[in-house]
Amino acid sequence: MINIEYKYDPTINEKIDLLKKRISENHSKITNKNGLGSEFLGWLDLPKYYKDSSEFNEIIKAGDQIKKDSQVLVVIGIGGSYLGAKAGYEMFKNPFKTNGVEVIFAGHQLSSKYLNNLTEYLMTKDFSINVISKSGTTTEPAISFRILKNLLEEKYKDKAYQRIYATTDEKKGALHNLSIENKYKTFVVPDNIGGRFSVLTAVGLLPLYVGGININDVLDGALEALNDFSTDDVYKNPAYYYAVIRYLLYKSGKKVEILANYEPEMAYFSEWWKQLFGESEGKDLQGLFVSSVNFTTDLHSMGQYIQEGERILFETVIKVKDHSSDLLIPKVENDIDELNYLAGKKLSYINNTALEATLIAHEDGQVPNIKINLDEISHKSFGYLVYFFELSCAMSAYLLNVNPFNQPGVEAYKKKMFNLLGKKGY
Amino acid sequence: MINIEYKYDPTINEKIDLLKKRISENHSKITNKNGLGSEFLGWLDLPKYYKDSSEFNEIIKAGDQIKKDSQVLVVIGIGGSYLGAKAGYEMFKNPFKTNGVEVIFAGHQLSSKYLNNLTEYLMTKDFSINVISKSGTTTEPAISFRILKNLLEEKYKDKAYQRIYATTDEKKGALHNLSIENKYKTFVVPDNIGGRFSVLTAVGLLPLYVGGININDVLDGALEALNDFSTDDVYKNPAYYYAVIRYLLYKSGKKVEILANYEPEMAYFSEWWKQLFGESEGKDLQGLFVSSVNFTTDLHSMGQYIQEGERILFETVIKVKDHSSDLLIPKVENDIDELNYLAGKKLSYINNTALEATLIAHEDGQVPNIKINLDEISHKSFGYLVYFFELSCAMSAYLLNVNPFNQPGVEAYKKKMFNLLGKKGY
Repeated sequence: MINIEYKYDPTINEKIDLLKKRISENHSKITNKNGLGSEFLGWLDLPKYYKDSSEFNEIIKAGDQIKKDSQVLVVIGIGGSYLGAKAGYEMFKNPFKTNGVEVIFAGHQLSSKYLNNLTEYLMTKDFSINVISKSGTTTEPAISFRILKNLLEEKYKDKAYQRIYATTDEKKGALHNLSIENKYKTFVVPDNIGGRFSVLTAVGLLPLYVGGININDVLDGALEALNDFSTDDVYKNPAYYYAVIRYLLYKSGKKVEILANYEPEMAYFSEWWKQLFGESEGKDLQGLFVSSVNFTTDLHSMGQYIQEGERILFETVIKVKDHSSDLLIPKVENDIDELNYLAGKKLSYINNTALEATLIAHEDGQVPNIKINLDEISHKSFGYLVYFFELSCAMSAYLLNVNPFNQPGVEAYKKKMFNLLGKKGY
Repeated sequence: MINIEYKYDPTINEKIDLLKKRISENHSKITNKNGLGSEFLGWLDLPKYYKDSSEFNEIIKAGDQIKKDSQVLVVIGIGGSYLGAKAGYEMFKNPFKTNGVEVIFAGHQLSSKYLNNLTEYLMTKDFSINVISKSGTTTEPAISFRILKNLLEEKYKDKAYQRIYATTDEKKGALHNLSIENKYKTFVVPDNIGGRFSVLTAVGLLPLYVGGININDVLDGALEALNDFSTDDVYKNPAYYYAVIRYLLYKSGKKVEILANYEPEMAYFSEWWKQLFGESEGKDLQGLFVSSVNFTTDLHSMGQYIQEGERILFETVIKVKDHSSDLLIPKVENDIDELNYLAGKKLSYINNTALEATLIAHEDGQVPNIKINLDEISHKSFGYLVYFFELSCAMSAYLLNVNPFNQPGVEAYKKKMFNLLGKKGY
């Protein structure tokens, strides 16, 4: 499904060889679940069994109910409770037309304009809510849920509870308790899977299924990835190969990794990727600063800097080989715009040529690149890519000697905010 | 309309004082138009006269015609021919409902999926095209224009030309020539204003006007900014104050500037800002790498890195004081989600408290911040902010001794692409 190319440094294998022992050790920490934060490795084997779980069936059942009775599903969540589903939904939706149920995200910021506009929009729609929060007390989703739950109850009275799906802790917490009390249908945020690794659980799968994605295929893709990346031989394991190259680039002094895609529908996938790596590695005053660009769009904004700014960057580029949707450049009689030399060519060919040209130009500008060749954009390859990056991230963080699965720094602003807002105990 | 706060470094004034002479010199280069790239300073005085120009009237006339005969305006452009209008349009639109004409952007990438979906969508709509390109031969917009022009001609036959508005070079170039030949209504991309500084010309104003923005107010805001920022006294000129602080942070070793907004509708404004600073300063192997975050959303993705990753960052935060749209947190009987301590509070108050808390938390983590206090989000303040950043950018680039107005590095990938595609002469 994917392979990795890295041509910038002809001596790379020698450098990788020096790390082989550490890679093997880290591989063993991951698979034997005895490294830092190993209590959060629940995502590792999940593709092996999740499709056969009763919860998977419940997701399908709930999703079918939502497809039957709702025009809109409002997904309330933030961070890992939002980015994975958003990434997948955006990758496959038609940007100009909703087919089936429209999935709208909320509770991922504190914008009054957004929430007012959304409330007004929902007045005229049949809708359900999937509220996703381990605790139920995270400020942003809790506020949105209070307000949208009110709206739902005004609209559907004593049947409102049937339109609320809560994805939360299995046994405790505010949202869990509220769900029991009000008979909401519930799904589980597992204890052993952190937010940014949770897209292949109910957290991501229910919104994706409602949004028209074949979640069987998604999990099949993840399982294929699991099998493809089971060896500790870095040269046969693209997930580890990617991890070790970016580690070596970091150690050689690069400070910023830019994830570049050439397919605009992947913009939110890059946001998901940024959380995955930024939150897993950005600790102990180290880690690559992760950023993303959508090319060719951003060649006309960030391209100048990448070509000629400070040499602190490298790029990771996702190249998609086959495109299900394509079109041909038409020929016109008078060639004023000078495009006839491209007449009859596929647009995807031109896009991929722009990609290759950019790699050469940026390499000339001393920007190394890692190319991830992906066969196609499909529900299956989405699952595959998710698992690929999750496993890479675990290896990469272990190479840095940090815990890939915690996020101690995220609490800092929350504590300060509760203090300023006057919450009890802060 | 705005003021700047910078509290991180108590000795900052001493450092600024050492640069006073250079700031004055640069101010004189800007206002006397005799510095590097000064042939591109046309944007500097534009707010003084543009509203009285015949072109401004023509924009209103054309815009009114489009409002009369079109449901959709497709704006075809890339880079500076796209980002300014997109930034403004996104800032004021309702994300869930189009009021008036829907503005859709195209020609800003090479996605076949996007173009196919767009074509299908336009079949059922009355639409016009505003194609924006100085030359008319830039690959991305030229391809989209070929394809969408075909569609327009199939739909409106010999009246199609009346629905094409070309914003291009006044006297020469492929799009200019095509416009003459086909009697398209034309607007001017001035010779003395580069793409990323062009939003207050027809390039940005026609799409903005059609999208429902009061462009009189936008230009009034820019004129107010022009007057507010006319002094070379850095302590009385927020545009220069911002420029010099970010310059000093860069010289102290910071590599990345993050622009943080707390209003999701400003996400594309940050993209515009990234082009402005990245393309103006990222040359001669120097310049800050510019990045953006949308808070509080991204506190749950990039927040960890900002708090505890490598200390190469500083933040520039836009704080909006007054919100026209607001709502109150409702009280609920059983306080399971623990939000009742916020009941009756405005959502904007909570958002701004999150902002202040985050500044404190990040400062504790050794991330300096520059706070830009903005009175409100309005058409006027959009124009004001645009001019503020444009002038800051000129000063900032002059402090780095680079030409703020060229982009030599953008040609590198284009040349290579034409070569790979087999274009004559490459």
